[in-house]
This record gives sequence, C-alpha cells and structure tokens, in this order.
Amino acid sequence: MSNIRVLVLSGGVGGAKLLRGLYRVLPANTLAALVNTGDDFEHLGLRISPDIDTALYTLAGLAHPTQGWGRYDETWNFMAALEAVGGETWFRLGDRDLALHVERTRRLRAGETLTAVTRDFARRFGIAAPILPMSDDPVATRVMTDEGELAFQDYFVRLRCVPAVHDLGFVGADKARLSDAARAAFASPELEAIIIAPSNPWLSIDPLLAIPELRSALHSTKAPIVAVTPIIAGKAVKGPTAKIMNELEIEVSPLSVAAHYGDLVDGFVLDSSDAPLAEQFNIPVEVTDTLMTSVEDSGRVACAACALAASLSVRDRWTDYCPDG
Amino acid sequence: MSNIRVLVLSGGVGGAKLLRGLYRVLPANTLAALVNTGDDFEHLGLRISPDIDTALYTLAGLAHPTQGWGRYDETWNFMAALEAVGGETWFRLGDRDLALHVERTRRLRAGETLTAVTRDFARRFGIAAPILPMSDDPVATRVMTDEGELAFQDYFVRLRCVPAVHDLGFVGADKARLSDAARAAFASPELEAIIIAPSNPWLSIDPLLAIPELRSALHSTKAPIVAVTPIIAGKAVKGPTAKIMNELEIEVSPLSVAAHYGDLVDGFVLDSSDAPLAEQFNIPVEVTDTLMTSVEDSGRVACAACALAASLSVRDRWTDYCPDG
Repeated sequence: MSNIRVLVLSGGVGGAKLLRGLYRVLPANTLAALVNTGDDFEHLGLRISPDIDTALYTLAGLAHPTQGWGRYDETWNFMAALEAVGGETWFRLGDRDLALHVERTRRLRAGETLTAVTRDFARRFGIAAPILPMSDDPVATRVMTDEGELAFQDYFVRLRCVPAVHDLGFVGADKARLSDAARAAFASPELEAIIIAPSNPWLSIDPLLAIPELRSALHSTKAPIVAVTPIIAGKAVKGPTAKIMNELEIEVSPLSVAAHYGDLVDGFVLDSSDAPLAEQFNIPVEVTDTLMTSVEDSGRVACAACALAASLSVRDRWTDYCPDG
Repeated sequence: MSNIRVLVLSGGVGGAKLLRGLYRVLPANTLAALVNTGDDFEHLGLRISPDIDTALYTLAGLAHPTQGWGRYDETWNFMAALEAVGGETWFRLGDRDLALHVERTRRLRAGETLTAVTRDFARRFGIAAPILPMSDDPVATRVMTDEGELAFQDYFVRLRCVPAVHDLGFVGADKARLSDAARAAFASPELEAIIIAPSNPWLSIDPLLAIPELRSALHSTKAPIVAVTPIIAGKAVKGPTAKIMNELEIEVSPLSVAAHYGDLVDGFVLDSSDAPLAEQFNIPVEVTDTLMTSVEDSGRVACAACALAASLSVRDRWTDYCPDG
C-alpha cells in the first residue's frame, strides 16, 4: 500500500462508477478504495457485502449496467427454486452472484478477514487496485424511520426506502478499527488525494466517518480531501439520497452535502448544472458534468477530482510550513 | 403416520427408483421412506443430504434421469462463478439444487429438525408420502480404505470410489435415535411390509441398521421385511456395490446380500437372471426383472416386493399365535 496515491471512500453504485473512472485514469496500483460495509448483513445464512461486491463487479467489468447491483450475466434459477421451497426471496441473489456469498461466508467462518477474502476475490477478478472494507469489524447501519428502527436492508431493499427516515445509526462503528491494509493506505507516503465518492453521504459515507480511527486518519492526513457531489440540480442520480435529505429537513443541494462533510473536506466537485452555486462554497470547487453514464464520464469526473486535489495539494504542502496560515 | 402400510429403507438412486414405483402403485399416504443420512455432510458451509434430496427430486419428478443425483432442469452458473473465485468445485451443486441446501442449512441453524425441514420440502414439492431421515441426530459414514480413513463424500465423489474399501464405520449411529415420525411409522397399526430398497447394503443400508433403535424396531416389528436385490447377474446396476463386495472379499451375488442382512429379512426379491439361485435361499424369494429404467419397471419391482411381503404377512400373523413355531 506504500504506493497508493489516491484513496477513495465509497459506498455502492455511485462510488463504484467513480472508482471505475479513477481505475481507468490512474495506474491501478496507485488507487485504493475504502468501501462501506454498514450495509453488510447475513441473509439465508450467507454473509452479503453489497457495496464491496458492487466495487468488485464494476472494476471486473461484470456489473449490471443499469440495475445498480449484481452482475450483467446473471441467471435466477437458485431464486426460483428457493421460492418453490418457501425460502425468502425479497433480497435477490443471482446464481453467479451467489458464489461470492457462499465462498465469502465459508472463508469468514474459517477465520479469514473480510479484507483478505476481498483481496483474493479482486485478484481472481484481475483487479489490481486494492478494494478494502472500511473495517473487518462488524458495523451495521440502522435506519430510524416512521415505521420504527430498521436494519439497513430491510429499509433499503425489503421496504424499498418507503419509510421516512428520522435518523441513522451505525452499530459497532465506535468499536470498529481500520484494517492494517487500510491503515497502510492512509500512511502511504505517495498519498495525494482522498476522494469521497458521490455515494449517499448519510447512508453510505457516514458509516465510514463513524469509525473513530478512520475519522482521525482523515483529520490527520496531509493529503487533500475532496468530495464529489451526489446531488445534481436538486436531485440524486440514483437511490434515496434526495428523499432522505427531505425527510431530514435538509435542502437538496450540493451545498448541504458540503456542509454535512464540514471541515473534513478541502474541495468539492460540483456539477455543471449547479455552477452558479460555486461562489457560495467556502472551499475550492471544481465544476464538471458529474453524471456518470459511460466509462468516459467516469474518467472525466475522476480527472476533475484528481485535478482539484492536485491544486489543493500545493496549498497543503505550503501549510506544512505555515500551520497557522 | 398411523396409516402407513409400507415402510421403505432407502439409500440414494436405487432406493429412489423403488420408491417411485411404490409411490405409483400404493396410495401415497400409505407409503413412508426412511432414508440414509450417513452420506450427509457440510460443504461450502451448507448442509447437504444427498439421499434425502434424491428421494425428494425423484418423487417430485425433478430428478435427472440418468445422472444418479440432482435435477433434470439444472444450470451450473453458481459452480462456474465459484470456480472463478477459487472455491471448491469437486462436489457439483447446481443453481436450482443449491436452493435446497441453502434453505435447509438456514432452517437447521434456526433449530428445525431435518425431519421437519424435509417434510416441508416434500409438501412444497407436492409429495404426499413422508420421506423421513433415518435420524435427526448426526451419523457420518466413514470409509476405511487403502488410502486411509475417508469421509464418505471424499471417498464417493472426490476420489470416485477408487480407493479399495477395507471396512466401514458409522460415527454417531450408536447414539442416534429415531425421530418421532419414524417411530410412528414403525408403530403404524396398518404396517404390512418393510422393504429394504436395492441400495448398496454396505454404504447405504448399513448406516440405518447401525442405529440401535432402528435395528430394534426391525427386530420387533410384526410386518415382514423383504429386501430387493441390488445385484443383478453378478453386477451392481449403478455405483460401487460390486467393487466394494470384491474388496471386502464377498462374492458378488444376491445370496451374499441376503446373507449380509441375515435373519433381519423374511423374503428376498431376486432378479430373473439370477432365478437359478432361488433354491439356495433359505427364505421365500420372489423373482422378477429388477432393473428399473422406466417408471413401469419401478412399479413392477414395487409390486413384486409388496406381493412377497403380503405372502409372508400371512405367515407372520400365524406366528403371532405360535411364537415358537
């Protein structure tokens, strides 16, 4: 991990799309991703890591192009047979996808860490960039809603994000530690940028920020931290970000996202459609088209984030000498 | 279980074929099967019950017609994806078949018995006859070979029955108990026949006979016990029966099978090709074509076994009055 130049904090599909762009733009072994595991859960006796798998499938070129989860080359015979014997089918597990869950579960039970299992899966998928779970310790996102407190996947998949969200909690985050690999990525002497991916700040990024050691690493890093907006023209590209912001009585604006991250971030990548808001930011802003449909889009956003970080890096290096300036 | 008239002791494919015939011939709710679970094992963290599943798939009309295991309508995408991430693939689990293992494992972990889970699967497959595990307690068949002591599936699937067998053991059998359902089947006032299916006596039937309570139930039942030959003209229809008999220095003959069961059986269904041996049996023999390729074949063998039992039943009823006769 000593040659990591860019470390990405990522949730699911939005994060994976940015990752794909960075993976295209940067030398692969200079990129690492620290991925949310707050959505992880046990289902049918299997350990599911949705955001990790989305990152794996995306970088392996196996991700479904529009679905937002799972593989493009999937079949559903397991699910159909499971339904026939009365099993739970609200969480869809494809025949090929299932292999990851079965093998991960087996290895975790045998004592391997999620970090080690994920590293091996990535290697077998031919992915050169380390995809790191945010922690090997269990963290479970809980969603406080008008229908009571819900486990994340109950809220997100089973109830399709319908219940109104009042608050979120990340059980175990206070005791979770970074893995050695994640620590090494933060300690890389080459580290030039930490990029917060355009994932849902409340659902997907906050679980990472709730880990004290991770938050502390972000506060003490010399690398600039830039966030890529998950909000474009008052809307989220995918998922319930805007809905949740409304329910939390937060204006659906990239300014709210920047405010949410507060002094953690040194720069912000804003969508072109929101360019007029740029002057309202009190941190440097880079403006680009942030909607990532094609790989080229992802590369463009990756470059914008890296360019912004590079511009801030100079400032950061300068502040090394002038800590009060 | 109070209306069970025929109880079958069964292993895998040979037993399932006879079951299918009995299921066709008898009113479904008068038939019960007590199935070997000595082959059961945990694989990839999943609880696999090969003989139970063969019985389920066969009676549900889902069994592969020639393969001897699994479903006819199977796909293998899970297996291919598992191989891609380095998982163990020597034991083939189809996408649809996998549903049974995942759901069974989940329910067993949740505290259900194998008997209860199997009953529910059978119900969902529309099978009216009870398919009963020989026990809900763990019994593991061990194979002592010239390559050392092997777990059953290591011998049977991974090593394809190549190692020479010296002896067999059934770990846990001495402590295993019948389930209430199995006990009730033995206690059925309607019970007219117990049929030992043409499964491998050493690998598939002996695990049942190694359970003291089961053996005792067989010894004390008033129903006649008849065995259907797994040997036809000096050969086994399928699997390693003849090979194992050779390795155990037992002549590959239906007479050896009858001798193996000893005084447990009251009658023997012999193949037409072995008809000349009939006079060498010291118990009543019924001769028929025992090769079961079609459902009609299975029905014929089922009828032969039932007819033989019926003829013995009279004798048994008579011995009720003349215990010493």
